[in-house]
Amino acid sequence: MSERVNLRIPGPTPVPPEVLEAMSHPMVNHRGREFAGLIQRVAERLKEFFCTNSDVLILSASGTGGLEAAVVNVLSPGDRVLAVSIGAFGDRFAAIADTYGAEVKALNYEWCQAADPEDVRRALADDAQIRAVLVTHNETSTGVTNPLQDIARVVREAERLLLVDAVSSLSSIPLETDAWGLDVTVTGSQKGWMAPPGLAFVAMSERAWKANENAKMPRFYFDLARYRDLLPKGQTPWTPTVSVFFGLDVALERMAEEGMERIFARHARMAQMTRQGVQSLGLELLCADERFASNTVTAVKCPDGVEVSALRNVLEDEYGVVVAGGQAKLSGKIFRIGHLGLVEEEDIKQTLQALEKALPQVGYTLPAYR
Amino acid sequence: MSERVNLRIPGPTPVPPEVLEAMSHPMVNHRGREFAGLIQRVAERLKEFFCTNSDVLILSASGTGGLEAAVVNVLSPGDRVLAVSIGAFGDRFAAIADTYGAEVKALNYEWCQAADPEDVRRALADDAQIRAVLVTHNETSTGVTNPLQDIARVVREAERLLLVDAVSSLSSIPLETDAWGLDVTVTGSQKGWMAPPGLAFVAMSERAWKANENAKMPRFYFDLARYRDLLPKGQTPWTPTVSVFFGLDVALERMAEEGMERIFARHARMAQMTRQGVQSLGLELLCADERFASNTVTAVKCPDGVEVSALRNVLEDEYGVVVAGGQAKLSGKIFRIGHLGLVEEEDIKQTLQALEKALPQVGYTLPAYR
Repeated sequence: MSERVNLRIPGPTPVPPEVLEAMSHPMVNHRGREFAGLIQRVAERLKEFFCTNSDVLILSASGTGGLEAAVVNVLSPGDRVLAVSIGAFGDRFAAIADTYGAEVKALNYEWCQAADPEDVRRALADDAQIRAVLVTHNETSTGVTNPLQDIARVVREAERLLLVDAVSSLSSIPLETDAWGLDVTVTGSQKGWMAPPGLAFVAMSERAWKANENAKMPRFYFDLARYRDLLPKGQTPWTPTVSVFFGLDVALERMAEEGMERIFARHARMAQMTRQGVQSLGLELLCADERFASNTVTAVKCPDGVEVSALRNVLEDEYGVVVAGGQAKLSGKIFRIGHLGLVEEEDIKQTLQALEKALPQVGYTLPAYR
Repeated sequence: MSERVNLRIPGPTPVPPEVLEAMSHPMVNHRGREFAGLIQRVAERLKEFFCTNSDVLILSASGTGGLEAAVVNVLSPGDRVLAVSIGAFGDRFAAIADTYGAEVKALNYEWCQAADPEDVRRALADDAQIRAVLVTHNETSTGVTNPLQDIARVVREAERLLLVDAVSSLSSIPLETDAWGLDVTVTGSQKGWMAPPGLAFVAMSERAWKANENAKMPRFYFDLARYRDLLPKGQTPWTPTVSVFFGLDVALERMAEEGMERIFARHARMAQMTRQGVQSLGLELLCADERFASNTVTAVKCPDGVEVSALRNVLEDEYGVVVAGGQAKLSGKIFRIGHLGLVEEEDIKQTLQALEKALPQVGYTLPAYR
C-alpha cells in the first residue's frame, strides 16, 4: 500500500513516525511489572487531557465499543433516555441504548445543525422520567460541534445523567469533564490522539459510578467496574491491545510536550484554513453556522454535477489525498476533510491544491476570481 | 522495556520480526479499496486454518470479547445451556452466559482434568431443555486439552448447539470446524497466530446463523450479522484495529508457508520437550494424564517450599525467561509455560536451563540423577 498518502479522513488519522515505531515493540507479559507501569502512566496522562480527577479506563475496542460501555454501565432496561442526535453518530448512540432496552426519546436535528440547549432544557422539564441524556460532542458525519458546555449546564440543573460521545473532539477541542459536569465521557485512540485505532477511553463521574451500582443492563467485556478495580494494579480484565498502548504512550508524550492550549489553537487554525480554502473554491459548507463549525472535520457539499466517488478517486489516485465521503443519508451529497490529530498547514495546503486541480477534472468549473 | 526476553506465557506470544515491522504500517482509510483487499485476504486465510467454509468474522476485541459474541449471537435470555468447565476459562464462558440471562447448568471438573464426553451425553439425554453446550477446547489455566471431537460428536447426535472457546488451541493443534460440526468457534490473534493481541476471530455454522435469527440477547458492538453483511465489501461495522490486521496479514503468510501439519507437529514436539524437561527436573505436571496434556501450554506444580512469585522473578530478572503463574484457585500453586505460536527448540531449551538454575536459588533441591 502507498505510504505517502495525505490521509485527510476523520479517523484513523495519520500517526507520527515515532508512534509507528513504538507499534513494533516486541510482545510483553501484559500482567507484568513493566507493562503495569505503562498502563498507569498512560491512564494518568489521559486524565489530564480529560480534565478529570476520575479514572480514565482503557478498553480494547473502537469508539463504538466505548459508547456501548457508557450506556450499559449506568442504565437499566426500561430507563428513559433523551437521545440528542445531529447526525449518524448521534443516531448510533441512540441505537445502542435502544438495543439494550432503554426507552429512547429522540431529539433529532437536521444533519447540518447543532442542538439547542433550550430544547434539551424543555425536554427535561417536560418529562421527569428521563434519567439520562445522550449527546455527541462533535458529530463526525456532519462536521458540527454541539455547544456541550451549555447542554451540560441544563442537564446538571435538571439533575440527570449526561453521557457524552467525545470520540472526535476530546484532545482536539476544549472539553472539561469535571468542570462541565459530564458523567460518562468516551473517546477513541484513532482520532485526536495521534495513535492507531484499537483503544477506547472512558471516564465516569461519581454520579455515574453511583448509577452503576444499580444499572441492570447486561455487560461483561465492557463491565467498567472490572476495569476500575484492576487499574490500581496496572492491569486490564482481558488481554489488552498492547501494541496500541505502546504507540499511545509515545503519542501522549508528544501531545504533552505541545500542550493542550497549543493543540487546540492548531486545530482551530487548521479548521479555519480548511473552511476558507474550500469556500474560496466556490464550494459550500454543510454547516452554514460558523459558531458550530467543527474544528476537527469539515463537511463540504458536493457541487451539482459532480460525483463524490469520482472526486474522491481522482484526489486519491492522482494527488495522494484521501478524503471521506458522506454517511447514511448524506452519502453521495458531501465529502469530508479530517483535520485532527497530526495535522499541519502543509497538509491542508496540499489538500486544497489537490481539490483545486481535481474538481475541474470531474466536471466542476472553478470560480473566475478566487 | 527489555527486548530480549524469552516470553513463555500462553499469550501474548512472541511475534516474528517481520510481523512487528508490519505493525508500523502508516494509517490508511479503513474503508478504502486497499484495506478492503487486506481484510478479505486475511479472512480467506483464516477460513483455511479454521477448516471451514463459513465466513470467519474479525472483531476488534480480545478473545473474551469473541466469547461474548458467541453467546449473545445465538442465545436468548432464559435459554438453558450446559457449561462444561475444566478451569478458569470454562468458568468465564459460563459467567458470560449467566450475565446475559442464560440458565446455566454447570458441568464442572477438577482443575487438572479433561471433560468426559459421556458425561456430556448423559447431561443432554437427561435434559431436553438444554439448547447449547459451551466448551473450552484448550484450557489455558490448567494446560488440559478437552477431547473436542468426541464432545462435538455427542452434541451433534443430541442436536444441540456447540459453542467452542478455541482461543488457545486453534492454529496450534488440530481443530476442524466443519468436519467436527462446531457451531460457534472463537479464537484470538495473540495466541497461536504469531500476531499481537487486539483481534478475535469467530466462525458461525449455518445452524448458528439460523439460531441467530431468533436470538434475543442484546448485542451491538458484537452483533455478528453486521460483520457478516459487511465482509463482502471488505469492511467491518466499526473502525477496526488496523495495525493488528497489518501484522496478522504477514503472520498468516508465514503460517501458510509452514503449513498446518508442520505447525501442529512443531507444537506437539515443543510440548513433549517441555513436559519431559520439567519432569526430568523432578517437577510434577498438573495434568497427570498424557492423553489430555496440552500442546500449547504446560502447567507445572510448584514444589513444596518454593514460592511461585519468587521463582518467576528469578527466571525473569536473572535469566530473561517469563513464565505465567496460576489463575484463580491455582494462584500460588502452579506456574505455566507457554509453547504456542512462535516457538522453537531453542526457546524451550533456554527455558529448561533457566529453570534448572533458578529452582535451587529459590529453595528447591534438584534430583541427583537427571
